[in-house]
Amino acid sequence: MGCFPFLKKYDHGSKFFGCGPPRHFPYYPQFHDQFDLAHLCDQVEVEPIESPYKTKSRGDVNGHASNMHHMYVHDNDCVLIKVVHFGSETSVGVQYDDNGEWKFKPIWARRAGPRAWIYFSPHMVKAAIVTCGGLCPGLNDVIRQIVISLEVYGVKSILGIQYGFKGFVDNNHLPIMLTKKLVQTINMSGGSFLGVSRGCPPLEDIVNKLEEWNVNMFFVIGGNGSHAGALAIYNHCAKRKLKLVVVGIPKTIDNDIELLDKTFGFDTAVEEAQRAINAAYIEASSAFNGVGIVKLMGRQSGYITMYATIASGQVDIVLIPEVPFVMDGKYGILDYMKKRIQKNGICVVVIAEGAGQEQLDNNGGMDASGNPILGDVGKWFTNKVKEYFGKAKIPIDAKYIDPTYMIRARACNSSDHIFCSILGQNAVHGAFAGYTNFTIGLINTHYCFLPIPMVIRRPRMVDPNSIMYHRCVTSTGQPNFNNPK
Amino acid sequence: MGCFPFLKKYDHGSKFFGCGPPRHFPYYPQFHDQFDLAHLCDQVEVEPIESPYKTKSRGDVNGHASNMHHMYVHDNDCVLIKVVHFGSETSVGVQYDDNGEWKFKPIWARRAGPRAWIYFSPHMVKAAIVTCGGLCPGLNDVIRQIVISLEVYGVKSILGIQYGFKGFVDNNHLPIMLTKKLVQTINMSGGSFLGVSRGCPPLEDIVNKLEEWNVNMFFVIGGNGSHAGALAIYNHCAKRKLKLVVVGIPKTIDNDIELLDKTFGFDTAVEEAQRAINAAYIEASSAFNGVGIVKLMGRQSGYITMYATIASGQVDIVLIPEVPFVMDGKYGILDYMKKRIQKNGICVVVIAEGAGQEQLDNNGGMDASGNPILGDVGKWFTNKVKEYFGKAKIPIDAKYIDPTYMIRARACNSSDHIFCSILGQNAVHGAFAGYTNFTIGLINTHYCFLPIPMVIRRPRMVDPNSIMYHRCVTSTGQPNFNNPK
Amino acid sequence: MGCFPFLKKYDHGSKFFGCGPPRHFPYYPQFHDQFDLAHLCDQVEVEPIESPYKTKSRGDVNGHASNMHHMYVHDNDCVLIKVVHFGSETSVGVQYDDNGEWKFKPIWARRAGPRAWIYFSPHMVKAAIVTCGGLCPGLNDVIRQIVISLEVYGVKSILGIQYGFKGFVDNNHLPIMLTKKLVQTINMSGGSFLGVSRGCPPLEDIVNKLEEWNVNMFFVIGGNGSHAGALAIYNHCAKRKLKLVVVGIPKTIDNDIELLDKTFGFDTAVEEAQRAINAAYIEASSAFNGVGIVKLMGRQSGYITMYATIASGQVDIVLIPEVPFVMDGKYGILDYMKKRIQKNGICVVVIAEGAGQEQLDNNGGMDASGNPILGDVGKWFTNKVKEYFGKAKIPIDAKYIDPTYMIRARACNSSDHIFCSILGQNAVHGAFAGYTNFTIGLINTHYCFLPIPMVIRRPRMVDPNSIMYHRCVTSTGQPNFNNPK
Amino acid sequence: MGCFPFLKKYDHGSKFFGCGPPRHFPYYPQFHDQFDLAHLCDQVEVEPIESPYKTKSRGDVNGHASNMHHMYVHDNDCVLIKVVHFGSETSVGVQYDDNGEWKFKPIWARRAGPRAWIYFSPHMVKAAIVTCGGLCPGLNDVIRQIVISLEVYGVKSILGIQYGFKGFVDNNHLPIMLTKKLVQTINMSGGSFLGVSRGCPPLEDIVNKLEEWNVNMFFVIGGNGSHAGALAIYNHCAKRKLKLVVVGIPKTIDNDIELLDKTFGFDTAVEEAQRAINAAYIEASSAFNGVGIVKLMGRQSGYITMYATIASGQVDIVLIPEVPFVMDGKYGILDYMKKRIQKNGICVVVIAEGAGQEQLDNNGGMDASGNPILGDVGKWFTNKVKEYFGKAKIPIDAKYIDPTYMIRARACNSSDHIFCSILGQNAVHGAFAGYTNFTIGLINTHYCFLPIPMVIRRPRMVDPNSIMYHRCVTSTGQPNFNNPK
Repeated sequence: MGCFPFLKKYDHGSKFFGCGPPRHFPYYPQFHDQFDLAHLCDQVEVEPIESPYKTKSRGDVNGHASNMHHMYVHDNDCVLIKVVHFGSETSVGVQYDDNGEWKFKPIWARRAGPRAWIYFSPHMVKAAIVTCGGLCPGLNDVIRQIVISLEVYGVKSILGIQYGFKGFVDNNHLPIMLTKKLVQTINMSGGSFLGVSRGCPPLEDIVNKLEEWNVNMFFVIGGNGSHAGALAIYNHCAKRKLKLVVVGIPKTIDNDIELLDKTFGFDTAVEEAQRAINAAYIEASSAFNGVGIVKLMGRQSGYITMYATIASGQVDIVLIPEVPFVMDGKYGILDYMKKRIQKNGICVVVIAEGAGQEQLDNNGGMDASGNPILGDVGKWFTNKVKEYFGKAKIPIDAKYIDPTYMIRARACNSSDHIFCSILGQNAVHGAFAGYTNFTIGLINTHYCFLPIPMVIRRPRMVDPNSIMYHRCVTSTGQPNFNNPK
Repeated sequence: MGCFPFLKKYDHGSKFFGCGPPRHFPYYPQFHDQFDLAHLCDQVEVEPIESPYKTKSRGDVNGHASNMHHMYVHDNDCVLIKVVHFGSETSVGVQYDDNGEWKFKPIWARRAGPRAWIYFSPHMVKAAIVTCGGLCPGLNDVIRQIVISLEVYGVKSILGIQYGFKGFVDNNHLPIMLTKKLVQTINMSGGSFLGVSRGCPPLEDIVNKLEEWNVNMFFVIGGNGSHAGALAIYNHCAKRKLKLVVVGIPKTIDNDIELLDKTFGFDTAVEEAQRAINAAYIEASSAFNGVGIVKLMGRQSGYITMYATIASGQVDIVLIPEVPFVMDGKYGILDYMKKRIQKNGICVVVIAEGAGQEQLDNNGGMDASGNPILGDVGKWFTNKVKEYFGKAKIPIDAKYIDPTYMIRARACNSSDHIFCSILGQNAVHGAFAGYTNFTIGLINTHYCFLPIPMVIRRPRMVDPNSIMYHRCVTSTGQPNFNNPK
Repeated sequence: MGCFPFLKKYDHGSKFFGCGPPRHFPYYPQFHDQFDLAHLCDQVEVEPIESPYKTKSRGDVNGHASNMHHMYVHDNDCVLIKVVHFGSETSVGVQYDDNGEWKFKPIWARRAGPRAWIYFSPHMVKAAIVTCGGLCPGLNDVIRQIVISLEVYGVKSILGIQYGFKGFVDNNHLPIMLTKKLVQTINMSGGSFLGVSRGCPPLEDIVNKLEEWNVNMFFVIGGNGSHAGALAIYNHCAKRKLKLVVVGIPKTIDNDIELLDKTFGFDTAVEEAQRAINAAYIEASSAFNGVGIVKLMGRQSGYITMYATIASGQVDIVLIPEVPFVMDGKYGILDYMKKRIQKNGICVVVIAEGAGQEQLDNNGGMDASGNPILGDVGKWFTNKVKEYFGKAKIPIDAKYIDPTYMIRARACNSSDHIFCSILGQNAVHGAFAGYTNFTIGLINTHYCFLPIPMVIRRPRMVDPNSIMYHRCVTSTGQPNFNNPK
Repeated sequence: MGCFPFLKKYDHGSKFFGCGPPRHFPYYPQFHDQFDLAHLCDQVEVEPIESPYKTKSRGDVNGHASNMHHMYVHDNDCVLIKVVHFGSETSVGVQYDDNGEWKFKPIWARRAGPRAWIYFSPHMVKAAIVTCGGLCPGLNDVIRQIVISLEVYGVKSILGIQYGFKGFVDNNHLPIMLTKKLVQTINMSGGSFLGVSRGCPPLEDIVNKLEEWNVNMFFVIGGNGSHAGALAIYNHCAKRKLKLVVVGIPKTIDNDIELLDKTFGFDTAVEEAQRAINAAYIEASSAFNGVGIVKLMGRQSGYITMYATIASGQVDIVLIPEVPFVMDGKYGILDYMKKRIQKNGICVVVIAEGAGQEQLDNNGGMDASGNPILGDVGKWFTNKVKEYFGKAKIPIDAKYIDPTYMIRARACNSSDHIFCSILGQNAVHGAFAGYTNFTIGLINTHYCFLPIPMVIRRPRMVDPNSIMYHRCVTSTGQPNFNNPK
C-alpha cells in the first residue's frame, strides 16, 4: 500500500512530515486521488520555513515559554468522508457512489488546520480577497477573519477587491487596503464590506491583474460559479508558473454543496426563514380560512425550506425542487388544501423558489452568473390557489410572504460567527501551507481542505428518500402530490 | 468475524433483520461491545410487529399508494465514532483511548431512527416523561416532540411527571395527561412545561409507581445524575422482568457529554452568552480603563465559555476549569491585565463558573443533585481585580455580569428547535424498537442510540491541546497563566 | 359659564360627582360638545353603585385596610387636546381648525380611568369582544387585558366573537367563553386569538344576536370601518333602549387617527419596518449601483413610512401618499436617483403603499371592508426604475422588499404591551362607568374617552408642513419631486 | 398683560419675531419666568443672521425652488406643561404645585425647533460634545445626530471630548475630531463612542480649556450631576462674557426628570428589563416553589421597575424606592410570599435598586459623581427570603437576576432611535438660535427648550397615588406592605 497517497506528490518534505497512513485500513486509490490537493511546489520551486503561527506564551511578554504544544495539524491527518455503514440496501438514506455501490468504503479528506512548515514568508505575502455572487450571512465574518489571521502570521499587505470579480477591471473601484483595525467590527452587520456582484470579466484580465499587483494569495469567497472561476484562475497560474495560491471559501446560502455538513450562513438563514413562516402561520391562523404561503430561497435544492419547516413545526405543505408535484386532480395539492381548509380552517405552505418550475411559463433567460432566471413560483402558486378556491366558492384569505432579501441581509448568529471564523482561519492556514486550488469544508464536524473540483461537480440536492426529508414530511403530515404511475 | 455483533443477543429477529456487518473492516469486539444496546427481549418474552409509522401517502386520503419507500433504519446501520486519522502522535487534538493508544480504530455506534418492526402495540403503550435538573433551552421542544411522535405511532396515554423525579412521590403534584393539543405551542417559550427539580427519591419508590401506573415507556430528560438514575431504574426493571423500556435524552447546557457532537440547548446558550459578552465589551470600551467580567456556566467544562468567546471576538482573557491559572506574580493574570489596561485601556474577561475553584475558600457542601456547591468565582475574581488595581493606584472601572439565568430560561433558536425535534422523535423510535437503557446522541452529524453507561462514565472536558482551544486562545491572544515548572 | 358641560346630560349624579369645571378657562361650547360622551342613562333608567375596583389592601388578606386612596378618576377630569400655542401663522406645523382658525383654543376631552360609581353590577355583566379588519401587533394584548380587567371587577361571563363581525352570523364559529386562565399568555404571540375578518353582516343581525345573547358590554377592537359599525350598532341599541354599552378600541397600524398621539401596534410596526429598511440598505450597499426599495403599509397616510425612515437613518428617498411626486423629467425621481447612483453608488427608497396611486393603472374594486384595492406601487416603482436605468444603460442592482405581513404578524414590543394593557383597562372602566359610543385614545400622553364620531370623521394624514415631515426629509436630504407650478 | 414674556429680554429682535402670546389665556408671570431661557445676547453683542437650515428643494440640484415653506419654529411658539384639569382634589394623580395648589394653571414652555434667524455663522462654529455618567441606550444616537445636524448647518469643526469631563484635563485622551463619516453607524451599537466617566475636574479648568480650544457651542449629554456642571460652566461663561452657549441633553435611564414625558433610553431599558423578568418568571414557574427575583435600575425612582412590571404582566410583587415596605410580621412581604407560594407554587419579585435601602446596613460612601453607594438590595432580599423559608421549613428554589449592565449596554430600539435623533437636532437648533443654559425635553409629545435649573431642582419620583402606580399594583395584585398606622 506504500506511503499514504496524500504525500505522493510533494514528499520532498519527508523531513517535515511523518508518513503514517492508516495502514490497517483498506485503501481505495481511485477515491483517495480525488481528494488529493494541488500544491504550490508543483508550480514553482519553493522551500518550506518554520511557521510563526504559535499560541502566544507568556514568553512573548516576559520570557516564560508556553507549555502548550502540539498545535499543528499533520499533513497526513485526514477525516473520513462517509461514516455510516448501512446494514441493508433498503436502509433509509442509503446512497450509491459513482460506481453504483452503496456499501461503506473509507474515503479520506485532508484535515484543515495550521501546519508547522509554511511556504510563504509572511512579510512577502500580498493577499487579495474577493466576494462574489449574492449576499449570504457571514461574508463579513469570513473577510474579517482572513484579514485577522493573515495579520497573526505577520502579513502586512492585504487587498480587498470590490464588487466581485468586476473589481479587477473597474478603475473606479480599485482595491482597498484591508487591516484588522478596519475590519474589526464588520461582522456586526450583514452584507459584504467589499461588495458583491455576479458575472466575471475575462479570466486573462483577472490573472494579469493578480500578477501586476504581485498577489500571491488569492481568496475567493463565492458559490459554484465563483469556484469554477477560481479553478480556471488556478489553471492559468499553474500554466504561468506563478507563485500564487488560489483558495476558495464556499458560499451558498442554499447549503447545496456535496460532502459538506453545511455551508456558512445557512443556519442563520434558517433562523430568519422560520420567522417568516411564523408570520405566515400567525396571519393564516388569525384569518377566516387563512392560507399562508412563504417562498424561500433554493433554486435547485430545498435545504432552507426543509430545515425551516422542521424548525417551525407549523407547516402543512412543503414543496422543494427535488420533489415534483401536481396542482390539479384528486392527487393534487389544491384538492388536499381544500380538505385541510375544510377541516382546520388553515393551511400553511412553504415553497422553495425552484420548486415546480416546469409548470411555470418561463421566458427563459440567464442572469450574469449564468443561472437561469426562474419564474416566481410563489406568485404563481398564490394565484392558482386563489383561482381554485374562487371557482369552488370557498372564501379564503391568502397571504403571500417573500422574505428573501430580509434573510440574505442579516448579520449572522453565534453559530455562524464561529463557523465563519474557523473557515477564515483555515483558508489562511491552507494558503501558508502551500496548498492551492482548494476550498474549506466541514465534514462530519471536522474542517477539511478539499480540491475545488470535488465540490463543484454538481449541486447537492435533498434526497427524497433521506431520513431528513422523511422527518420533514412527517412533521407536515402531507401525502405525495404525484400522480400515480 | 462472524455476524455483526450488534445482533448477537436478539437475532431471533433474523427474519426481520438482514445481517451485514462491514466485513471489510477490522472488528474490535472489545470496543463494539461497549456500544451494544440492551433490549426488551432480554427482559421479557416479546414478539415484534410491523410498524405503523409510515410517511403518509395520498392513499391515506383517497387510495393512492405512496411511492416513498425505504423509510426505516436497519438494525445493523451504524455510525463511526471516531473519524479522524492522525498522521502523527504530535498532531493537534490527538487523543488516547482507554488502552493508551492514539491510532485510528473503527468503532461503531448504532444509528438511530424508525425501525420496520416494533415491540409495542401502540394502543397498549403507556408512556411517562420526566425532566430533571436545571433548566436548559429546548426542554419544551423535546417534551413536545416525544408527545407528538407517540401520537403519530398511535399512543393514547402519556403521563407528564411533574418537577423531576420528585413527581413520583408528591401527591400534590400528580402526573398530568399530555396530548399533542396541550403541548402544541410549548416550544415557543423557555423553561420546562413539566417543571424540574434536583434530587431523587428512593429508586424503589419510583419503580413501584411506574409499575402501579402501568408505564411501559419511560423517558428521562436529564443530565448525568438523571441518566445514572435511569440506569438504576433500568436495572430494577430488568430484575423485576417488567415490560418497560427506559430511554434517556441527554440534557446538559454545558455540552459536557463524551462522544457527542453537542447537546441540545448549547447552541442557544452560546448565542445568549455572546450577548452578555457584548454587553461587557460595550461597558468596558465606553469606560475609562474599563474592565468587563462575565461569568458563564460550566462547572467542570468550559465549552460555553470557549464557544461564546470565539463567537464574540472581543475577549482578552478566557478562563475555563480545565486550565489552571495563577492570579499573582509575573506570570499571573493581574500583571497581564495591567499591561492590557495600560496599552489599550480595556480588558474583557470571560470566566467559567468552575474555573479556579481551588483558589476560592469554599465551605464545601453539595446541592440536591449531589453536585458540589461552587464558590462564586466571578465575584471573587472581580474583587481580586479591584483590590489589585486599587493597590497599584490605577483607576479602573470594573463591571461584572452574571447572565446565567437569562441564558437558561431562553426559548431555543432554530437550530436547537430542529435538534430537539429529532432527539424527541428518536427517543420514541428507539423505545418502540424495544431498546432500553439507552440515550440519544448526535455523533459526527448522525443520530445514534447509545448505551447509557457509555455516556455517563465521565464528563467531557475541554482538551487544552485541542484545536478548538487553540482557536480560542488565538482569538484572545492570551498567554499561559501558569507558573513555569 | 355654568357647570362644566360634560355633566349636563346626566347630572342626576350630582350626589356622586363634584361639579368643578376649569372656570378660569374660556369655554367654547361648540368644541366641548363635540367631545361630550353618550351615557347609558340616556337609554335606560339606571342607578349607579359603588365600584368594587380597588387597589388591593392587606385587608383583603388579613384585615388591614389599605392606606392607598384617591384611586378614581373624577368625571370632570379632562385633558387638553391642543397644547401648542403658535407664535405666528407661519410657524411650522400650524394647523387650522374647522372654522379656519389657527390660534390656540382650549378644548378638552374626558380623562379615562376607573370611576368611583359604576352602572353595572359585575355579576350581571355579559361582555362580548370582537376584533375586526387586518392584523396589528397588540390585538392579543388588548383582548387579554379586557378579559383580565373584567375579572378584576368580578365579571364571570365574557364572549369572544370569532373572525370579526362575521362571528355573529356564522354558526360554525360560535363565540367562545373567555377567561383569564385561557388568555393568560396570548400576548406572547402575534395575530388575533379570536381571529379577524373584513366586512360586516347586516347590522340588524348583529344587534339581534347581542340581544339574544344578553350582551350588555360590547367591545369592538377595530379600525375606522369597525368604529363606524360600532356607531351604527350603538344607534340601534339606543333606539331599542337596550341596556348595552358599545366601546371601541381604535386599531390602526397606520396610526392614522386624528387627535391621538399614536395607536397601538404602531411602535412595534415601526421597529419591524426599520428591520426591512436595514435589509434593503445592506443589500443596496453591498451591490454595485445597488438600489433598495421597501414598500410599507400606509394606504392614505405615511406615518409608518415616515417614522421608520427617521429611525433607520439610511434612506435616500421617502414617498408617502400625502405628497405627490413625478417620476420623469428634470424634477422627477428617476433623474434624482441617477444623480445619487452616480455620486454614491447606492439609493434606498421607502414608499408607502398608498403613495403615487394616481399614477398606477388601477382596475379599481373594493375589498370586503370597502377600502379601494390599491395597485402595487412597490412593483410598479421597481419596474419603472429598472426600465429607466436600462434605457440609460446604467447597470443597477435593484432589490424590492415587501415586509407587510412580517410586520403585521409580530408580537408587540414592551412599549405596546404597556399601551395595550392600559387601553384594555380603560375600555372596561369606561363601560362600567356607563359611557357608550366611545373609544379610548392617548392624547398628550393621557388616556381619554372620546366620542366615536370624533375619531372617524376622517383619517389623519401626514402634514407635509409639519415639523415631523421636515425632520424626515431633512434626514433623507431629498428635494421636492413636484413639477414647478 | 403686555407682550408675551418669553420675548421680554431680547426683543431687540422684534423685526424677526412676531409678538403673539395667547392673550385670551390667563398669564401667570411667576410661572412663566421659570421657563424663560437665557440667551447669548445677554452675554455678548451679537446680531442674528438668516438660517441656512432649509429643507432641500430641487433648486439645490437644478434651479427649482422648493414649495415647502413655513419650516421654522417661531420664538413665541410654546407648549403647555400641564394639560390635565382635575375635577376634584380627590382625583387620582392630582398634584400640588410649589404654592400648594392643585388646580389647573396654564404654564408654558418654549417649543424647540429650528429658528429662522441664528446667532452663529456656521463656518465660525467650533462645537464640543461630551457624554457623562453611566451608560444609557442612545448615547451614540445623540452624538451622531448632533454631528450630522451641525454639518447640515455647515459646521466644519466638532470636537468629541473623551471619557466625560475628565477628557478636558487628560492629556492622554485628547478630543477627537468628529465628522458625519466617522459617526455614521455608531448608532448601531450601544455604549458611548466618546467614552463616559463620573466625576468632574475643577470647573475653572474646563472653562479654560473651552476658551483655549475656541469652543463656542458646548453640548453636555448627561444626568442631573452633569447638568449641574453645565449650569456652573454657563455661569462662568456668562461672567467671562464668552461667546459660548451651553446645551444639555438630559440622560437618565431612570426617567427621573421632572416635567418630561420620558428620557431617551428609557423605552429600550424597559424592553430589556422585561426580558429579565420573563427569564425570572420562566425559572420560577419551572421550579418547585420557584421564586424569581429581579433587581432593576432606579436609585431614587422606580420608573423602569414599574413599567417593566406592567409590560411583563407576570410579576407578583413590585418594590420601588418611593414606597416603603416591611419584610416581617403579618403585614410584611415574607408572610405574603408564603401565602403565594402555598397557593400558586410561584412568586416573582421585581425590586428597584434603591428600594428598601433604609433596611440595609450601608457603610455609606459616595461614588465619583457624588451619588451615595447603595447596598445591594437584591442580594439582601434574596438572603432574607431564603432564611425565612428555611426557618419555615418550606423548600423553595430562589433565583436572583441582576441584568443591569445588559440593559445599559444595549443599542436602542426604533422608538429611541427616533427620539434621540430629534433631541440631537434640537440641541443644535437651540444652540444656533443663541439659547444657552438650556436642555431639551419632551413635554406632552412636543419637544421643548427648558432652562437647566428647572429640570435639576429635584429628581422625579413615582407618585404612589398616581394612576400609573395604581395600574402597576393592580397588575401584580399585591397589597400594601406597610405596618398599619
